[in-house]
Amino acid sequence: MDIATLIGIVTAFGLVMFAIGSGIPSFIDPPSILIVVGGTIGVIFVAYPLHTVIGLVGIILKTFMYKVDSGQAVITQLVELSQVVRKDGILALESRVGDIGNQFMSKGLQMAIDGQEPGDIEDILYMEMDKISDRHMKGADILTALGTFAPSMGMIGTLVGLVLMLQNMSDPSSIGPSMSIALLTTFYGALMANIIFLPMAGKLKARSKEEILIHEIILTGIQSLVAGENPRIMEQKLLGYLPPKERKSAFD
Amino acid sequence: MDIATLIGIVTAFGLVMFAIGSGIPSFIDPPSILIVVGGTIGVIFVAYPLHTVIGLVGIILKTFMYKVDSGQAVITQLVELSQVVRKDGILALESRVGDIGNQFMSKGLQMAIDGQEPGDIEDILYMEMDKISDRHMKGADILTALGTFAPSMGMIGTLVGLVLMLQNMSDPSSIGPSMSIALLTTFYGALMANIIFLPMAGKLKARSKEEILIHEIILTGIQSLVAGENPRIMEQKLLGYLPPKERKSAFD
Amino acid sequence: MDIATLIGIVTAFGLVMFAIGSGIPSFIDPPSILIVVGGTIGVIFVAYPLHTVIGLVGIILKTFMYKVDSGQAVITQLVELSQVVRKDGILALESRVGDIGNQFMSKGLQMAIDGQEPGDIEDILYMEMDKISDRHMKGADILTALGTFAPSMGMIGTLVGLVLMLQNMSDPSSIGPSMSIALLTTFYGALMANIIFLPMAGKLKARSKEEILIHEIILTGIQSLVAGENPRIMEQKLLGYLPPKERKSAFD
Amino acid sequence: MDIATLIGIVTAFGLVMFAIGSGIPSFIDPPSILIVVGGTIGVIFVAYPLHTVIGLVGIILKTFMYKVDSGQAVITQLVELSQVVRKDGILALESRVGDIGNQFMSKGLQMAIDGQEPGDIEDILYMEMDKISDRHMKGADILTALGTFAPSMGMIGTLVGLVLMLQNMSDPSSIGPSMSIALLTTFYGALMANIIFLPMAGKLKARSKEEILIHEIILTGIQSLVAGENPRIMEQKLLGYLPPKERKSAFD
Amino acid sequence: MDIATLIGIVTAFGLVMFAIGSGIPSFIDPPSILIVVGGTIGVIFVAYPLHTVIGLVGIILKTFMYKVDSGQAVITQLVELSQVVRKDGILALESRVGDIGNQFMSKGLQMAIDGQEPGDIEDILYMEMDKISDRHMKGADILTALGTFAPSMGMIGTLVGLVLMLQNMSDPSSIGPSMSIALLTTFYGALMANIIFLPMAGKLKARSKEEILIHEIILTGIQSLVAGENPRIMEQKLLGYLPPKERKSAFD
Repeated sequence: MDIATLIGIVTAFGLVMFAIGSGIPSFIDPPSILIVVGGTIGVIFVAYPLHTVIGLVGIILKTFMYKVDSGQAVITQLVELSQVVRKDGILALESRVGDIGNQFMSKGLQMAIDGQEPGDIEDILYMEMDKISDRHMKGADILTALGTFAPSMGMIGTLVGLVLMLQNMSDPSSIGPSMSIALLTTFYGALMANIIFLPMAGKLKARSKEEILIHEIILTGIQSLVAGENPRIMEQKLLGYLPPKERKSAFD
Repeated sequence: MDIATLIGIVTAFGLVMFAIGSGIPSFIDPPSILIVVGGTIGVIFVAYPLHTVIGLVGIILKTFMYKVDSGQAVITQLVELSQVVRKDGILALESRVGDIGNQFMSKGLQMAIDGQEPGDIEDILYMEMDKISDRHMKGADILTALGTFAPSMGMIGTLVGLVLMLQNMSDPSSIGPSMSIALLTTFYGALMANIIFLPMAGKLKARSKEEILIHEIILTGIQSLVAGENPRIMEQKLLGYLPPKERKSAFD
Repeated sequence: MDIATLIGIVTAFGLVMFAIGSGIPSFIDPPSILIVVGGTIGVIFVAYPLHTVIGLVGIILKTFMYKVDSGQAVITQLVELSQVVRKDGILALESRVGDIGNQFMSKGLQMAIDGQEPGDIEDILYMEMDKISDRHMKGADILTALGTFAPSMGMIGTLVGLVLMLQNMSDPSSIGPSMSIALLTTFYGALMANIIFLPMAGKLKARSKEEILIHEIILTGIQSLVAGENPRIMEQKLLGYLPPKERKSAFD
Repeated sequence: MDIATLIGIVTAFGLVMFAIGSGIPSFIDPPSILIVVGGTIGVIFVAYPLHTVIGLVGIILKTFMYKVDSGQAVITQLVELSQVVRKDGILALESRVGDIGNQFMSKGLQMAIDGQEPGDIEDILYMEMDKISDRHMKGADILTALGTFAPSMGMIGTLVGLVLMLQNMSDPSSIGPSMSIALLTTFYGALMANIIFLPMAGKLKARSKEEILIHEIILTGIQSLVAGENPRIMEQKLLGYLPPKERKSAFD
Repeated sequence: MDIATLIGIVTAFGLVMFAIGSGIPSFIDPPSILIVVGGTIGVIFVAYPLHTVIGLVGIILKTFMYKVDSGQAVITQLVELSQVVRKDGILALESRVGDIGNQFMSKGLQMAIDGQEPGDIEDILYMEMDKISDRHMKGADILTALGTFAPSMGMIGTLVGLVLMLQNMSDPSSIGPSMSIALLTTFYGALMANIIFLPMAGKLKARSKEEILIHEIILTGIQSLVAGENPRIMEQKLLGYLPPKERKSAFD
């Protein structure tokens, strides 16, 4: 659970509402909400295949739920497995694969146990890593698109409001309120883009980079394990992926 | 048929019209439409070769019609063909090639049947994949250009309207309506760009990425098939291209 | 002759003039034209070496004149030459090289006739292809710079006009006309950028991509020819560069 | 200590305050500060994982503290070590490694002393260099995000202020002050982005590039040292990384 | 001496002053100049390391002084040296190296005379070419940053002016002049960015590309010379770097 996403959205919205103060009811205009929210949804149907749009709820949930393994934990696990292999051979991993939570690691180990060629294992894992990253980037991509189209629909709504207002300026006292309503769609678009969609896209990208790092560690670890490298050397290699102060050796 | 494109455009336009309400007639100004639509078409003739502009209708239709094979179906088909090859040899594919709908796959298989070198097959398919992707990106590119030039023509129209209005301010009551007409070209440009051209460019890019993935699967599958790999290993490799929950093995 | 460039510019300018209508004289303000056109030229002298600026006229003319060979014609020619080589040997091309209009192809064939190493021919042609593309991109680059600096000079002109107007607001009736003149420089900058420079940059890029494709076809064709490949196989390879519906085989 | 960061911020803020003059109190509006500063912090919680946000203080401190070794000093040190190796063998470095301040260099030398394969040393150092640069870029990345979201929150605040003002225009004399307060959030966002976050991001990127250069020098030096190259040749190679006027040879 | 830089700046500024006409004194407001110029300098101290900022004067001077050798002259020289080598051996270059103005070429030749391995010469020259280009790009980079921060400081100054004006609207006749002064900082920022910094950054990039091309020619030439290639073949290779109409063969 990525509690920060929730805290951040609540904080930012809370502060905006605090700034509005008692005027909140006048900031809620259903037709304006309809044109910005509905229009953005319409545009996203034009811009993405149906199944991607349907997957959008899952993508948004991911910004709240994303779980990435800790690099240190993954390295400890790989070093331990490497010691098992050194002592009892690769087949000794058979009984352990089931307990491994990380699917990418268990797939790689299973291939090693099955005796597939090191080069093949590397190719398959590398390709899979690549595709996982592509899928995550697709999620960030559609959120960025939402963050671009929402302000555009906001601007379109404001243009509609301005044109309507300008065509009917006989009552000067109505100009202010008409213009304030015209600005509301721009306001909605800015809120949606800058507090929800664009920061969420940022989180998916940041999380994806973290996951890629974990996958690189696993890939390097399995290569080392299959090559029968000394667990100390393997650990030294893997710790290089972490920032110096996070490195803890199992051999110290 | 990509029904989502149609639904999205109708929804977004419908909501804009709903927001305008009874004022719709005043939002239709033929000279303003002429300068934005006609000007954008003129500019696109400057920016692209004639034959590309002529192909524009086809490109736009593609956003409604684009058909991409399902990754799972393609894998099932390749695994089946691989089993045929294992049992009866590569020439047994001869009778099957005609039934294959995907041109890229049938071309690759035909080369395999003709006994061309694996390296040559790979080179030709890889190059063809590259060129197909280039052609699709060219479509997305011209739609993006339309999405950039339409608002520019809209702004030019608004500048014309503003200058005309400012030179003739003797009658204050005409300022509002004049300005509202001046804003209409900006409005048209924003509609064209944000509801039609830019989202359509997005759809072409998304579809092209999906098709590239399918081509990568086919290319890997044919390499595996020509190399006489075990169908199980081949399937394992190919399923790696799909997200985990879409993977269904023919051997389970 | 790329007639589309001319048609596009005339159409877009014509529609802008039609939108202005009888007010055209009031849109022509020589000092404003001087600051935008002259200022943009000045800035381009700062931004590019003298010889590049001098070559600008040639670059602009290219957007009207650019001639790119047809891919189909180039393939037909290469296949024919390949058949000649098969029958009479590479030296039989000697008498034909003079008739080849495409300089890139004739240079490559001349090297083949001179008996240079296939690897050297490939290196030299590849490097030359690269440099041709660099030179074309430099043309698109300077036009893009013009399309960026022209609106900037327009904005600077408008700021000058606004400051002058604001310092002298004693006569309210002069505000409108003063402001309209201030806006003219923004208008000129927008016209120059969006109807001339940016679309022209687009055309050079599009043409350059087409030419690169032709060069890739020629390079692949000459490699195949030097390697003595079967003309059918060569044609099959080369047709892969074209979209399916443009492919016509000489052997059907 | 990078004193320039402090001087720059103080200078830029000082000049803005000087321009405001005696009006400073009217530029301090706590609710406006709250919405921009608090909102930006909220958004950054949505956009980045919790541990990255927590590390933000350290990242900002780095723009004041960043220490990069001088290229000339590193080269002198490497050449000296190379002479030691030539005379007394690689193990003679053992007593010296402890004195080396640069962690990257001491790690590389330790591996050389431990007798690891040159290829392995290269791989590990190269990977570590890559990861260090990734971590620094992440710091620049989050500062750039802050520099993007702060003006967005400023604009949202201004929209809130404008809508509130427009809904309540009965007292014309209050319009000016209301609008001035509405503009304050835009002002705060612009200050935060352009004087603090974006320039700080620039400094981290510039520093990171300098550090990468130093790491490249160290990597090349250790390769040369392990290969037992002549110290003069090694120095010649390494000096090529520096601008000509900074190159000083130990052999002149 | 790159006279075009000076001519361009004088022309663009001259035209702006001409557009201002007799109002020039009212466009000079020392506090506004101080906030934009001083603020931009302050920000650049935050964004770049001290030694880079100190080198800024040299970078700006380079846009006036940059000297790039002519490609044709460099090729002629290399071909001539190649003929000397063919006749009298590589050591015959010893007496000539001193006369070579281009440092990159003389360094490469000196290494060849010293009998270093062709692969080493290539590596060292390639790396040096890379670093020279990095250093030039750093110059273009800081000028681009100045061109981004100057308008930002201009906008900050205008916001200060607007807020001050809006808080004090009791005297309507002062609104115009106050607003005009507020706009001056935007005007200064636009001038600095669009007439000085951004075009200068463009010139450094253009010059750097030209120099890279010259270095590529020299690198290819020295490779050919060390490999003892025929001077005619060498010339043919090198001329491929130039546009067709600039190619002049020494053998015609």
